[in-house]
Amino acid sequence: MYQYSPNYAIGIDIGGTNTEFGIVNHRGEILKKGRIKTNTYPTIEPYLDELYDNLMPIIEAWQKAGNIVGIGVGAPNGNYYTGLIEYAPNLRWNGVIPLARLLTEKFNLPCTLTNDANAAAIGEMTFGAAKGFKDFIMITLGTGMGSGIVCNGQMVYGHDGYAGELGHTIIRHGGRKHWKTDLEGSLESYCSATGIVLTARELLQNTQQESLMRQYSLNEINSRLVYECALKGDALAQEVYRFTGQILGEALANFVMFSSPEAIVLFGGVIKAGDLFLKATREHMEKNVLPLYKNKVKIIFSELNEADAAILGASTLAWNINH
Amino acid sequence: MYQYSPNYAIGIDIGGTNTEFGIVNHRGEILKKGRIKTNTYPTIEPYLDELYDNLMPIIEAWQKAGNIVGIGVGAPNGNYYTGLIEYAPNLRWNGVIPLARLLTEKFNLPCTLTNDANAAAIGEMTFGAAKGFKDFIMITLGTGMGSGIVCNGQMVYGHDGYAGELGHTIIRHGGRKHWKTDLEGSLESYCSATGIVLTARELLQNTQQESLMRQYSLNEINSRLVYECALKGDALAQEVYRFTGQILGEALANFVMFSSPEAIVLFGGVIKAGDLFLKATREHMEKNVLPLYKNKVKIIFSELNEADAAILGASTLAWNINH
Repeated sequence: MYQYSPNYAIGIDIGGTNTEFGIVNHRGEILKKGRIKTNTYPTIEPYLDELYDNLMPIIEAWQKAGNIVGIGVGAPNGNYYTGLIEYAPNLRWNGVIPLARLLTEKFNLPCTLTNDANAAAIGEMTFGAAKGFKDFIMITLGTGMGSGIVCNGQMVYGHDGYAGELGHTIIRHGGRKHWKTDLEGSLESYCSATGIVLTARELLQNTQQESLMRQYSLNEINSRLVYECALKGDALAQEVYRFTGQILGEALANFVMFSSPEAIVLFGGVIKAGDLFLKATREHMEKNVLPLYKNKVKIIFSELNEADAAILGASTLAWNINH
Repeated sequence: MYQYSPNYAIGIDIGGTNTEFGIVNHRGEILKKGRIKTNTYPTIEPYLDELYDNLMPIIEAWQKAGNIVGIGVGAPNGNYYTGLIEYAPNLRWNGVIPLARLLTEKFNLPCTLTNDANAAAIGEMTFGAAKGFKDFIMITLGTGMGSGIVCNGQMVYGHDGYAGELGHTIIRHGGRKHWKTDLEGSLESYCSATGIVLTARELLQNTQQESLMRQYSLNEINSRLVYECALKGDALAQEVYRFTGQILGEALANFVMFSSPEAIVLFGGVIKAGDLFLKATREHMEKNVLPLYKNKVKIIFSELNEADAAILGASTLAWNINH
C-alpha cells in the first residue's frame, strides 16, 4: 500500500546581524522557525556548530514525518553557481567561504546558495508582492543594502553569479567613505540603516538645528532612535529620512533606465519608516528619469514578513535542486 | 521541379546624424548598402520619402532574385514591443513616432523595431565580438550614447521595451546639464562625442594651459579636432580623453555591479581614440568595483564595421518576425 510521505525544505537567511531559518512545506508554509546571531562568531566554524545545534533538532523532528529535500540558503555575496560566499563586506568572516559544501557536510543534505537579496526576491516573486511580475528589482534595506534583479521572469545572476550588488554602486562621486569597502559615495553608505545613522550624526555635527536627538551622544544615536524622533515630529530626524529618500530615488532612477522594471520592491527594517523617506524617493526617482519612464514604475513594499521572504525564497532553491 | 528562392532581410540603422541601411542574406552578408542623412528632416514624412527613394530600388532589384522577409530597424528609443519611437532626445522628430507601422505602410513589408544599441548588440552577439557571450553590455559611443544589455543570453527589454538607456543614468550628481534632456550629470553628457567637445571647451575656458586647440575658436572645436590634437601629443586634448575615460570607467563599475557581465563591448566613433581613454576607463572601473569583480570583466571593442553591426543586428529582427 502506498504511504504518502510529505516533502519539506529548509530555508536559511543569513543576515549581517541575525540568521533566520525555517522548515517549509510544498505550499510555502513555514512550519517551524528559529534564529541565531550571525555577527557574534568571528569565524565560520563556531557559527556552523551553533546553527547545527539549533537547526538539527527541527530537521530530526520533521524527518520522522516525511522527507527533507535539501537546504536553500540566502547569504550576502552568496554565489548560486559556486556555492561560495566571497568577500562579503557585511559579514565578519573574511575571504572565501565554501558555505554550500560546509552545510552539506554538516547536515548531510544537498545545499544550494544564493545572494540573500536574490533569495528574498525569489520569495517575493513566488509568494509575495512581486507575484506575476516578470521584470522587477528587489531592494533590501537593513543593516546593509542588498538587491535582487529579475528580468524576463529570471533572476539575473550574471556571468559569475554575482550580479545585483546595487548597494555598492556609486551614487555620489567622492562622497561618504564606506566603513568596509572603502568605496566613496556608495548607495549602501547612505540608504542602509547604518547609513541613516551616519547621516544623522553628520547633520547633528554640521548644523546648529535643535533636535530631540541632541539629548544623546553621537555614539548613542542608532536607527531606531532616529526613527522614533522623526515620528515625534523632530525636523532634523525627518530631514535624515528625506535625504535618505532623495539618494535612494536618484539611484532608483538609474536602475530604471538600466532594466526598465514594472516595479521596485522595497524590503527590510528601514521600510518601516514609510512615507518619512518614500515621498522623497518617488519625487527624486521621477525627477531623474527620461520622460518615457515617468509615472510608470511602481515603488511597493514587500508583502511578506521580513524574515519569511528570505526563508521562503531560500527554501525554493532547495526544491529546485531535486528537480 | 523545386526552384530555390533565397530569402533576404532589410536592416536599417537610424542614428542621430546618419541612417544606414542594407540588404542581408541568411549568412549575414550585407549585399548592398546605402545611407541618407537623419538630421536634415525636421519631420518624419520627408525623411520617409527620402528613405523610400533610396531603399526601394534595392528592394526591387533583390525581389527579382528572391524573397524579402521583412525590415528590421534599430533607432534611438525604438520600442521592440510597440514599434514606436518615443521622445528620442537625439532625433529631431519630437513626441511619439509609430515607425514600424509607417515603414510597413510605405514598403508593404513586415517591420520590427528596436533600440539602435540593442540592434548593435544583437549584431555583435550574432556575428561579432560578443559571439558566445550570454552576459554582456554593449555601449555605443557616437553623437549620443546608447546601450544594449544581454543577460542569460537574452536582450533585456524590460517591462515596457525601454530598458538599456545607460547614457542617461546620472554619474555626477549636480553635474553638466544635458543639452536635450536637462538631466544633470548624465553619462552621455560626458562620454559621447558631443560630451567630449563640451569637456574640451570647458578645459580651454577654465584653464590657462597651452594647447594646439587654442588655435581655434571655442565654436570651431569638434571631436575630430580634439582627437587629432591628442594624437599630436597635446596634453590638454589628452586630458579631455583621460577625463572621458575616467567617467566612463566609474559608470562601467556601477553597471558591472548591476548585471555582472562577462564583457563590456564598446562601439562607435569615439572608440577610434582607443588607449587615449581606455586606460583611464579600465583603471576607474577596477577602482570602483567590489573585490569580487576585480580583473574579471573584459572591456573589448566591436569587431564589426560600425555601420554593419547595427544593420546586421536590425536585419536579424526581420528574420525573427517570420519565424
